[in-house]
Amino acid sequence: MNEFRKISVIGLGLIASSICLTLRQKDPTIKLVGYDKDKVVRNRAKKIGLCKVESNLDDAVSGSQLIILCVPVGQMQAVTQRLKKIIEPGTTITDVGSVKLSIIEEIEFNIESVGGKYVPSHPIAGTERSGPDAGYAGLFEGRWCILTPTKKTNKKALNSLETFWKFLGMQTKIMTPEHHDLVLAVTSHAPHLIAYTMVGVVDDLETVTKSEIINYSAAGFRDFTRIAASDPVMWRDIFLNNQDAHLEVLGRFTEELFSLQRAIRKKDGEYLLKYFERTRSIRKGIVAAGQDTGTPNFGRD
Amino acid sequence: MNEFRKISVIGLGLIASSICLTLRQKDPTIKLVGYDKDKVVRNRAKKIGLCKVESNLDDAVSGSQLIILCVPVGQMQAVTQRLKKIIEPGTTITDVGSVKLSIIEEIEFNIESVGGKYVPSHPIAGTERSGPDAGYAGLFEGRWCILTPTKKTNKKALNSLETFWKFLGMQTKIMTPEHHDLVLAVTSHAPHLIAYTMVGVVDDLETVTKSEIINYSAAGFRDFTRIAASDPVMWRDIFLNNQDAHLEVLGRFTEELFSLQRAIRKKDGEYLLKYFERTRSIRKGIVAAGQDTGTPNFGRD
Repeated sequence: MNEFRKISVIGLGLIASSICLTLRQKDPTIKLVGYDKDKVVRNRAKKIGLCKVESNLDDAVSGSQLIILCVPVGQMQAVTQRLKKIIEPGTTITDVGSVKLSIIEEIEFNIESVGGKYVPSHPIAGTERSGPDAGYAGLFEGRWCILTPTKKTNKKALNSLETFWKFLGMQTKIMTPEHHDLVLAVTSHAPHLIAYTMVGVVDDLETVTKSEIINYSAAGFRDFTRIAASDPVMWRDIFLNNQDAHLEVLGRFTEELFSLQRAIRKKDGEYLLKYFERTRSIRKGIVAAGQDTGTPNFGRD
Repeated sequence: MNEFRKISVIGLGLIASSICLTLRQKDPTIKLVGYDKDKVVRNRAKKIGLCKVESNLDDAVSGSQLIILCVPVGQMQAVTQRLKKIIEPGTTITDVGSVKLSIIEEIEFNIESVGGKYVPSHPIAGTERSGPDAGYAGLFEGRWCILTPTKKTNKKALNSLETFWKFLGMQTKIMTPEHHDLVLAVTSHAPHLIAYTMVGVVDDLETVTKSEIINYSAAGFRDFTRIAASDPVMWRDIFLNNQDAHLEVLGRFTEELFSLQRAIRKKDGEYLLKYFERTRSIRKGIVAAGQDTGTPNFGRD
């Protein structure tokens, strides 16, 4: 099914380690090579046997048919500058960044100009954990991978990469980079920023102690802390690279929040009730689509 | 341990049904009687055998040593007006409302004036589900119950009620109603309002379709939909009855959100990184205190 027999993963965090573990389960004959610029990470990846780990980028990508860039968004350009000098023509290269437009602008030309075939993609899967120990084989199962080809994208490489993500258990969808960035601003980036904000508010209060927050967090707050425990560097880079979409969504969010704040101030129960009533159906849709568990409290209690 | 031999629960939703199921497990000799003003709910509670279900309030509280008011905050006053005429002097009465100051103002005098002993309490436990089928026996285990006595509160009744919640598996804490309302505004009410807002934003977008939202929700948004699936009437009443604390916390929230929005606009990566870095420790504290699972994605995947 999957034509890539030797695959390199660059940046050995949650996504790269999950790719390795999933591929080893699906097809142990695929050769997997990894690289991370951090020696501690490389040693750890080697120790837990994720893949063959090389201590320089050149060796890590040599002879690979597919190179997957799993570094934070802000490091894509630097990695590609180095790859440009070493990749063999015909190699397929993808990235797994959570923003697409800015990455494409930064790296597409560099790769295509030396004969590489670049296909931007985004496997939408993750947890709040990061690092080489965070991966697991089931991460991609049933989740969606969005591919955002441009005019330059090689059709055959696009098909092969789509097949690759399906081989990992994902469903795939093709859309424009612009639309991807807007969709993700709504379903992922804004929720993260809001969760970080809520946790930041709490961190800053003088009137309520930390231990009170912790003890009584089961009433709602604890959900926000999981999201806000995600990798800070990864999220900084996302917010620096999808500005327009974020500011648009946050503008809408503030508008809505103010309307609810006004209803609270005016004691407008009818407005609040109507608002709260219309939000249940989307939850049902998410559970029905297999994108979340329907068990109360996510089944964690 | 628990001195109440006959207990009435009024309002047969998630909390009342969990109380019944937990008590039946801990001590099957306790007599449990329930009432709900909604006939459909009463019939359902009867059918699933939660407790003895009476079709009028008088019969439901007759001879009980403890009456637990589990109706939405906005209905506490009306129920108490009726109870006032029928409760026997010496009966202990508590409520489980998520705001305390406004409930105390509304019902304490009515109960105390006819010889009832009122102890305000708030078991901090729940799920996004509501109704008589939502309850389960483990809901209170390890969670906290806050008791907020006033100058009028009978000390012995307070002790007995504290023992009662501990008997259900809870840890207890005494604080003033004012402080309770502020703590809960932060740990529960604001997170709920913000989750409702985020889901409302999505519900209103023209540029991203519902099925896109649903399919790509695993990247963060889905967490918000669980909280925003909570009972609309219960939450309307909470927001109508803890105004000052809510407006204070929401003001802080907006301030923080604007500071992050400005950092995004100015591409201030240092500010974003620092902000995102300080939020991990509170998550660790919550997991260490047993108030959440430490398994990635709440263990749901």
